Amino acid sequence: MHGAGNDFIVLDGIRQPIEMTPQRARALADRHFGIGADQILLVDTPSHPDADFRYRVFNSDGSEVEHCGNGARCFVRFIHEQGLSKRNPLKAEIQTGLIVLTETDNGEVIVNMGQTRFTPADVHFDTSALSNETQGEDTVWQLPLTACASPVRISLVAISNPHAVQVVENIATAPVAELGPLIESHPRFAQRVNAGFMEVVDRHTIKLRVYERGAGETLSCGTGACAAAVAGIRRGLLDNPVTVHTRGGTLTIDWANPDLYMTGPATTVFTGRVDIDKLTQHD
Amino acid sequence: MHGAGNDFIVLDGIRQPIEMTPQRARALADRHFGIGADQILLVDTPSHPDADFRYRVFNSDGSEVEHCGNGARCFVRFIHEQGLSKRNPLKAEIQTGLIVLTETDNGEVIVNMGQTRFTPADVHFDTSALSNETQGEDTVWQLPLTACASPVRISLVAISNPHAVQVVENIATAPVAELGPLIESHPRFAQRVNAGFMEVVDRHTIKLRVYERGAGETLSCGTGACAAAVAGIRRGLLDNPVTVHTRGGTLTIDWANPDLYMTGPATTVFTGRVDIDKLTQHD
Repeated sequence: MHGAGNDFIVLDGIRQPIEMTPQRARALADRHFGIGADQILLVDTPSHPDADFRYRVFNSDGSEVEHCGNGARCFVRFIHEQGLSKRNPLKAEIQTGLIVLTETDNGEVIVNMGQTRFTPADVHFDTSALSNETQGEDTVWQLPLTACASPVRISLVAISNPHAVQVVENIATAPVAELGPLIESHPRFAQRVNAGFMEVVDRHTIKLRVYERGAGETLSCGTGACAAAVAGIRRGLLDNPVTVHTRGGTLTIDWANPDLYMTGPATTVFTGRVDIDKLTQHD
Repeated sequence: MHGAGNDFIVLDGIRQPIEMTPQRARALADRHFGIGADQILLVDTPSHPDADFRYRVFNSDGSEVEHCGNGARCFVRFIHEQGLSKRNPLKAEIQTGLIVLTETDNGEVIVNMGQTRFTPADVHFDTSALSNETQGEDTVWQLPLTACASPVRISLVAISNPHAVQVVENIATAPVAELGPLIESHPRFAQRVNAGFMEVVDRHTIKLRVYERGAGETLSCGTGACAAAVAGIRRGLLDNPVTVHTRGGTLTIDWANPDLYMTGPATTVFTGRVDIDKLTQHD
């Protein structure tokens, strides 16, 4: 499946018990020796009494992560398409609690992405001796880059992972490949950062590209869309809700402060069978 | 399926008629919006009276090519696994004639890769004012690179596509990423070239990396393995047959002059169903 170009292998752990291991996740996600995907999603039995299902997400390197917004949309669509439940909205258990997922009449899915935070500490950012300015409700930081004569003006947003968002004139010519890695690995971000580049189209619309931490530029970054929309609203450039055009598809962000909701597509590409233990282990 | 890490979507065009178009091939091969593959293989009805099946190969950019050695092994395995025929060897029709494909008792497949040629004209190489030397039966050309103080010493081999093969001391540290693109797009190759880097392990064994024309370094290049083995034999460095270790797996080359045979693995990763007309078209 894919959600705006972010692609997933979704596994039914209800009708068949699946023990996911880092090795199996890597083998499945390998694009030449396995099926190939950005992440593996596992529909599993919940432990929380109020949850319908447990939602687990494994990166292509085998590590388990808490949440993936683009994946959560595919998770719901899979449950409905495969007949595992007709319930809508669904409550999904993740490591930190429950999230509510709603499939709309037009086939898109609304995901509660939780709350946002904005302090330098929330994104592990060292501000010592750095200039900043107030724009609307936001504090915009001037991040010096050795490669650039003038600093980059970034907004800080934490929404399950850290983001540094900047406004650009033209998304097509934005220096994502050049500046993205410099910002992502900037020594002032102790845990690195996702670098967002947004062009404001009108007060309800942006175009976005994101250089993701550890992954490079991706087709669509769900949390990056949330971070950019919220940064634009706080800077006084945008009004809620915000339509975000990414290279992989369109997402809508509704910041019903404090919680934030993301709406977007979930697409089934193909269905199949794999013998997980016969996959080639390749390094 | 994959053959030494070269991965394919194999389609049964016998039990269901499939009209392959460039647009459909691109959509299937897309690794985020489609299934994802290096190439699409289509098992089709032959027009030649002596052929068992017709073998068609489509690149991920939608273009149709004549032959793919790693793919031919998967083609045979698919026909046997899916019960389309028990015949072994199989005769497959390609654009220029028939090829014979044999599955061995240990599950590997032997592919007739056709004949090799060695003149500069065969690889569209401009030799004017270039130095060369004779090594064994081979003519080794000194290719000047602007980035390098001394020229690169290459053997020329054509085997359905053009190859420039050089010998390196250590395959792990060979400058494939640096020199590969310079050789591939060198102005003396009118139709560009595949750049091979081989380390001679012993007289029957090499390690190989190939920077492929239009694709960059790949896990395994079937024709590249053939070209390197033949170049090594002609230079007097190797004896037939030659075992070729690539990053994606091991291939064996048997140069039964004039025809050349490649033996290697064919692995089924998963089976599935796709609605070809519902795939997202993405640019």
